[in-house]
Amino acid sequence: MRSPVSLSLALAVAVAPLAAQASDSSARAVLTLMPMPASVRVDAGRLLLSPFFRVAVPRYRDARLLRAVDRALSHLAGRTGLVLSHDIARDSLLGTLVVDVRAAGQTVQSVDENESYTLDVTGGRVVLRAPTVVGALRGLETFQQLVSGDSDAFGVPFVHIADQPRFRWRGLLIDVSRHFEPVEVIERNLDAMAAVKLNVLHWHLSDDQGFRVESRRFPKLGRGSDGESYTRGQVKEVIAYARDRGIRVVPEFDMPGHAISWFVGYPAYASAPGPYTLPTDYHFTAAAFDPTRASVYHFIDGFVAEMSALFPDRYWHVGGDEVDARIWTSNPAIRRFMRHHKMADAGALQAYFDQRLSRILAAHHKRMIGWDEVLHPDLPRSVLVQSWRGYESLGEGAREGYSGILSAGLYLDAMSSAAQLYMVDPLPAGNDLDSAQVARILGGEACMWGELVTPETIDSRIWPRTAAIAERLWSPREVVDIDDMYRRLAAVSVELEDVGVQHLSGPAALWRRIAGTDQIAPLRALAGVVEPVSLGQRMRLRRPTTVTPLIAPGDIVTPDARDGRALSALLDTLFRDPGAARGAAVRDTLAAMFARWRSIAPALAAMTTHAPLLIDADSAAVALAAASAVGEEALSYLSDGRTAAPAWTTDRLAQLDSAAAPRGLLRLAIVPPLRRLVLAAGGTAAASGQ
Amino acid sequence: MRSPVSLSLALAVAVAPLAAQASDSSARAVLTLMPMPASVRVDAGRLLLSPFFRVAVPRYRDARLLRAVDRALSHLAGRTGLVLSHDIARDSLLGTLVVDVRAAGQTVQSVDENESYTLDVTGGRVVLRAPTVVGALRGLETFQQLVSGDSDAFGVPFVHIADQPRFRWRGLLIDVSRHFEPVEVIERNLDAMAAVKLNVLHWHLSDDQGFRVESRRFPKLGRGSDGESYTRGQVKEVIAYARDRGIRVVPEFDMPGHAISWFVGYPAYASAPGPYTLPTDYHFTAAAFDPTRASVYHFIDGFVAEMSALFPDRYWHVGGDEVDARIWTSNPAIRRFMRHHKMADAGALQAYFDQRLSRILAAHHKRMIGWDEVLHPDLPRSVLVQSWRGYESLGEGAREGYSGILSAGLYLDAMSSAAQLYMVDPLPAGNDLDSAQVARILGGEACMWGELVTPETIDSRIWPRTAAIAERLWSPREVVDIDDMYRRLAAVSVELEDVGVQHLSGPAALWRRIAGTDQIAPLRALAGVVEPVSLGQRMRLRRPTTVTPLIAPGDIVTPDARDGRALSALLDTLFRDPGAARGAAVRDTLAAMFARWRSIAPALAAMTTHAPLLIDADSAAVALAAASAVGEEALSYLSDGRTAAPAWTTDRLAQLDSAAAPRGLLRLAIVPPLRRLVLAAGGTAAASGQ
Repeated sequence: MRSPVSLSLALAVAVAPLAAQASDSSARAVLTLMPMPASVRVDAGRLLLSPFFRVAVPRYRDARLLRAVDRALSHLAGRTGLVLSHDIARDSLLGTLVVDVRAAGQTVQSVDENESYTLDVTGGRVVLRAPTVVGALRGLETFQQLVSGDSDAFGVPFVHIADQPRFRWRGLLIDVSRHFEPVEVIERNLDAMAAVKLNVLHWHLSDDQGFRVESRRFPKLGRGSDGESYTRGQVKEVIAYARDRGIRVVPEFDMPGHAISWFVGYPAYASAPGPYTLPTDYHFTAAAFDPTRASVYHFIDGFVAEMSALFPDRYWHVGGDEVDARIWTSNPAIRRFMRHHKMADAGALQAYFDQRLSRILAAHHKRMIGWDEVLHPDLPRSVLVQSWRGYESLGEGAREGYSGILSAGLYLDAMSSAAQLYMVDPLPAGNDLDSAQVARILGGEACMWGELVTPETIDSRIWPRTAAIAERLWSPREVVDIDDMYRRLAAVSVELEDVGVQHLSGPAALWRRIAGTDQIAPLRALAGVVEPVSLGQRMRLRRPTTVTPLIAPGDIVTPDARDGRALSALLDTLFRDPGAARGAAVRDTLAAMFARWRSIAPALAAMTTHAPLLIDADSAAVALAAASAVGEEALSYLSDGRTAAPAWTTDRLAQLDSAAAPRGLLRLAIVPPLRRLVLAAGGTAAASGQ
Repeated sequence: MRSPVSLSLALAVAVAPLAAQASDSSARAVLTLMPMPASVRVDAGRLLLSPFFRVAVPRYRDARLLRAVDRALSHLAGRTGLVLSHDIARDSLLGTLVVDVRAAGQTVQSVDENESYTLDVTGGRVVLRAPTVVGALRGLETFQQLVSGDSDAFGVPFVHIADQPRFRWRGLLIDVSRHFEPVEVIERNLDAMAAVKLNVLHWHLSDDQGFRVESRRFPKLGRGSDGESYTRGQVKEVIAYARDRGIRVVPEFDMPGHAISWFVGYPAYASAPGPYTLPTDYHFTAAAFDPTRASVYHFIDGFVAEMSALFPDRYWHVGGDEVDARIWTSNPAIRRFMRHHKMADAGALQAYFDQRLSRILAAHHKRMIGWDEVLHPDLPRSVLVQSWRGYESLGEGAREGYSGILSAGLYLDAMSSAAQLYMVDPLPAGNDLDSAQVARILGGEACMWGELVTPETIDSRIWPRTAAIAERLWSPREVVDIDDMYRRLAAVSVELEDVGVQHLSGPAALWRRIAGTDQIAPLRALAGVVEPVSLGQRMRLRRPTTVTPLIAPGDIVTPDARDGRALSALLDTLFRDPGAARGAAVRDTLAAMFARWRSIAPALAAMTTHAPLLIDADSAAVALAAASAVGEEALSYLSDGRTAAPAWTTDRLAQLDSAAAPRGLLRLAIVPPLRRLVLAAGGTAAASGQ
């Protein structure tokens, strides 16, 4: 058995601060931190965790900080099996981990909160220093991610970390309108957000399909909730829970469009007469507030008055997206109003509405955020613009003096891979903004729209991919090594379940349910190879509604199918060095992989005889068997050193094309690398590219 | 593709009522009901479930019944993917499922509640008839268990079921003192209990290690809670939740012993002076109420007055177990009291205490239950006796006129197999009780003591094994086919997760946590072969306390290791017919099994280099590899038709003996069948027995 110290010596090397380095340094390769800190130095050695581990908080301390330390201790005990004292010392000499905090930080956390910290692990102890409690919270998360085991014990490598975020606004939008998400779902996601240092929960609380907050002043809003909404007490609980984790809560009440749920109880404020009922479908629906009537602004003022007392954050999201001009222009009274006020089009009318809205919000000490449709020359420069239609509108806004955050490219329901999400940068290299404009780009938000997620599936749609987004928003721009990101994501993914989200347990439970058995090895195997179809295909193929049970295989599998990446990596190795002994070993591995994949179809066929919901999985497995057979043929050409005839190549590429077609809501993730293999068998140089 | 109807015709045969039959009828073999109803007739045909499925409640209806129907509809939609209407009709002609209930049933459910129902599935519809709402709840569970899929759709076989329980008291004890279990844990277990028709939650609310209910009258009881207890509101919520599912809640406040947590706040009522602190260990601790002082009874009376208003059940469990006589006899004042009242021993003093307790309870309209130590000639016959020390005390009580329930043999923490628990019958065949005595045996309770379970692990300790106990307590005594029980248990196990318990998800999540990866196939494979050591070994080996994290492999694996049973079944087949082609196939299967088992050790060794908590799993895998090698050798003798030398047999049996020793908290579950194989290789006839 190796001693922990010698292991550490073998692995760890002293290196210069990270931000100045290449991203694949050997020092970083031992860490599974995500997001990667701004600066890390790894030294030789490792602090062992023992039952004598104890936390000291010698300087500033308050209940929020002590609760965070307490959570960290519980989490640490639950991971290491150590019985740890929850008695937090005041004397720093008594601490194995000294949490040295200067002050509380802001009473209401703002976008300007100081989140920096330093973390020094040496032989004697761990010292976490932060100017604010929020900085300490960030450092505590880093500390927990540093803990790893060898064969004997758990420990923390000697490191010196100096860290602060690249962007001040690092958010996750959760849409609770299309499908309601109970408080426990929100809270476990807040825990996961905190683990990867996100700092804004954007709570999309109203949309056509549901209004989700209790209003005492306007109780008929409850009629737009279908019985599922948060009480005021629950809202307060969530906000307190978030604040405990250094996370702001920004409410969104979407208007003037996406507003049917308001009108179920209050049809008088709509631009067309009611009555309104909650839609169960997701068709684009033509309903909006009437911007021409004083009573509408009076109503909104009253609503903001009530809710601004409930939501302490400085920002208030008004939505502002996707208003169909015809909603207004088909109403004669509204057309008269527009003519009277010399408004050229519906855009001008929305700008008028947004201006009045921003004045109402200002009167209640709130700053307005809106989706990028709100961008209009008449809009006050105080408004923050959230870009969803493209990166361009973010830059455009910044040049015109608006601050902005990026969500274009960060829609989680689009089912992009973690790698794709990871490369979406609010300030990409080579942008043409000047320093003042750059300062207006506050950050970004991942968006979990609710049409296709339920409390059972939402976690696996958000996590672990959002951890990659969190790193993009926190870490230096230069941290872009995708292989290293996936390496660390695999570790962080498991840790995220420990803090409460169920993105790994949830899919397994759903497989068991729709298979009717706990023997789901063939489905696990299939899930390594298939991914969900794109959002567009999904909506077209099955036309889901708010009441459709979301338990198809396409609701269970996730992007980043593991075997898809594994196959690509094997082919990279093979094509780099096809002749050597290593090439033969890779070919053996590939052959075993293909054989394993072919064996899934008969197993699933048997399962599907009593599990009709597996039908998509069954036909995906059949396609997989066909694709695997093509792979085996291609491999035999390579093994024998023969070159396939052009007709073979053409035919097999066509077979792969048909294997690539969606099977229900599933698609094979391994077709692009298999194409490479077929091309290689045909002697085509393109085999080495994707 | 086969049509559902022809499939049903192929499988289903019309048979006479079940109670009168052999337990392995082919009709029953198509059903996965658990508990098996008192009488089932299966007819040819199957009612298909479609989106037009609708429930009608034409006669008696109340909110409880409608909520239950609503839950059943949600559950059905979540299993089948069908969009089902939640609009419950009054006109029975509109119902695919007609729920015809005569009356509400008891206002406070008692042991005498009528739980019977009939369920008739024919071509046109399903008719559930019940005299009470509780009977309808039971029938709704049976209906849901009847739903199964073929390759095309879900349906329900044509059946005629007439059902009622064998025993009136079918309970689960959950100890929340040693480890606190939050309300959500209790509620999800109530859902699982309802699914298998259990009807009593025995809530063990106080013990030495924690007092778990808020008292307004005696607020210092909160000092004995370590900050974790139920508010009155939560207690009411749990009771309402249970009543909605036809489950009674019987509180236990253990006294005079097991009572340290009372004395943390109220030391004056103890028989020895304080101060008292909550113990974190599980040593037998010498503290008890002082039965000689009037103030003690005054206190208890006040406490019962407060709590009897909170807990509506007719029964109140006083504990009464394990009082160490020396607690009392070492106190001079108590000795004087005993002399004065001519009490021969501590038993007489406890009987005096119990008598006074029963009078206090009677004044508050409560009937007393106690553990079998309370049995004493002076005890009133109205007391219900819960037998934990053995079956004998149950029968003894019944002969002396006491009603009783059985828990001996039903301790879930003893880690017995489902088969062992299944055979524990409160009224076994051949008992010598007369009919009046038989009527006094009300049923039984599974006991989930809390020393070694946390909210993370409790579900996998209770389920699915408790479903087998539930069947014993509900179904006819003649339903005893263990293979068929395991067949149905596998299906019910998956359904239990759907209703909320996490006995399958929870262990997987813990494996991922302590392995630090989501690639846990070797651990899943190992879990098929190993089981937890017995409770006694566990307590001796590791001496756990209330603060020990319970995340060792021995906290994750469960009894009934799948491959242990699979190996036994294969050997049964082999020894029944060793020569034929089938024998060769079985030998091939065994060889593959042994090879698979041997491959676990190297995989786990690699994992354990960075996961120290896997150590027990690692050494169990090494033992498994050794045992598998022995199996392979034995198999080669059988394949070659050779007989092993006696020395070989002796040596290999010794090797198996050492493989059978506990590895930390794990033990191999496959040693007994491997011994059979070795003996067979040595030509010993004993091979065909266990």
